[in-house]
Amino acid sequence: MLIDGQQIDQLPADDRGLAYGDGLFETIRISNRQPQLWSQHMHRLQAGCTNIGLECPTEVLLKSEIDQLIASKDNGVIKIIVTRGSGGRGYRPDDCATPRRIISFHDLPVYSDHNYDKGIRLYHCNTPVTVNARLAGLKTLCRLEQVLAQSEWNPDEYAEGLMLDDQRRVIEGTRSNIFIVLENTLLTPSLESAGIKGVMRDLIIELAQLNDIKVIQRQIELTEMIEADEIFVCNSIIGIWPVSEFQGLEYSNRKITTKLKTLIEQYINQHD
Amino acid sequence: MLIDGQQIDQLPADDRGLAYGDGLFETIRISNRQPQLWSQHMHRLQAGCTNIGLECPTEVLLKSEIDQLIASKDNGVIKIIVTRGSGGRGYRPDDCATPRRIISFHDLPVYSDHNYDKGIRLYHCNTPVTVNARLAGLKTLCRLEQVLAQSEWNPDEYAEGLMLDDQRRVIEGTRSNIFIVLENTLLTPSLESAGIKGVMRDLIIELAQLNDIKVIQRQIELTEMIEADEIFVCNSIIGIWPVSEFQGLEYSNRKITTKLKTLIEQYINQHD
Repeated sequence: MLIDGQQIDQLPADDRGLAYGDGLFETIRISNRQPQLWSQHMHRLQAGCTNIGLECPTEVLLKSEIDQLIASKDNGVIKIIVTRGSGGRGYRPDDCATPRRIISFHDLPVYSDHNYDKGIRLYHCNTPVTVNARLAGLKTLCRLEQVLAQSEWNPDEYAEGLMLDDQRRVIEGTRSNIFIVLENTLLTPSLESAGIKGVMRDLIIELAQLNDIKVIQRQIELTEMIEADEIFVCNSIIGIWPVSEFQGLEYSNRKITTKLKTLIEQYINQHD
Repeated sequence: MLIDGQQIDQLPADDRGLAYGDGLFETIRISNRQPQLWSQHMHRLQAGCTNIGLECPTEVLLKSEIDQLIASKDNGVIKIIVTRGSGGRGYRPDDCATPRRIISFHDLPVYSDHNYDKGIRLYHCNTPVTVNARLAGLKTLCRLEQVLAQSEWNPDEYAEGLMLDDQRRVIEGTRSNIFIVLENTLLTPSLESAGIKGVMRDLIIELAQLNDIKVIQRQIELTEMIEADEIFVCNSIIGIWPVSEFQGLEYSNRKITTKLKTLIEQYINQHD
């Protein structure tokens, strides 16, 4: 772990990331010693920092620190946290605060092949996703709802949980975005008032558009999940997991899911 | 500052309070070397911990550590943070995680007498308050919306800002709860889906009921602010600040506001 470039694993307790969730994070998959979808992660982090008025560490600085952490490890996960730094008691940010960066390396989680090949069972979470149009889309440090949602189910039974907003509209998985296929059209929630815009989500939308798969971002009702031909969840660590079961219904079609999986693999092989 | 009873000011960077806002906090006013509204703060902290599945440090332990920090200081502010402790990468809480407590002493903020005597100008924030029925009422570490809201205005012009939900209903101030008086009835937002249930808010409701002031918790529309006879904001550090101006309208009646202020002072003098 590196905190502001130093090999330490402690930080000042007056950090505003701890006090108020005043910061952002990225989790990046490392494959063959390279951060996957690097430019997408950097783009999101920089846009997020601009959005909340944080000075983002430069791409060059972050890349050099990540290289230092990866060292001889082939695969893993890098987590970057950027906070507004140390600050007094009180929500108002000090203009002089210096952002703090915390970069850590983690082993790649071990996921069953079954999740990729046969698909996953998707749990229906009771914990709602937070609605806030100002924060929607951002990967902020305020994630208590995801913590509570993941506490609801036994991970041996379900690989992921679906979260709805207060109007019971489909928003996202606890750690993934969700897509459904309805009448040969790929649909994903528009995330204008809730949810996190995942790097993998945005890549899938882009690849679908480039490959003549009709894709629409809009509000998705829970009832549309029932009618869906295909459902899958995605993030930049796991890639794509097809959903095989949700609320007692089985989903076995994989046509567009499989096509997108291939397109992502091709994209990553070409760009990393 | 004491972290788990130790006089240190650094904590492990893998704390879940930092990673996910996975924790709660209290800010308590110290007057004459005593924490004001102590039992109310403890009650909220304990209820909040139970709500999110955290083991709350005991009241005896917290009190002894606070006494140690107050030492010879007559007045100030104590902040207690309780997090789920250190935990790996991933939202799911580890059953074995040990909660961490971070207790710090701060000087009492200096507020102008004008705020108390003449009242404050209340800013209308664009940043909406987060809607989440599961988290509503709790004083969680997820407070980025308050940080962004307070960044909107110049503190020389306004002493507090009003936050609305996505339906443009009145919820709370950025660091206070709000009450309005309409036709001799005290109204305050019910906070079923958004906002923090302040210790001072709950005391005011209780004292009003005990003293034959009709009080109703319900949804409050922004238009009702215009019709209000009196408006005030409150929290356990500042007490009560009457609102003298909001969106160009002036509020000069203080009948119920002044009565409640006296009742609070009496209550605190009797109980501390």
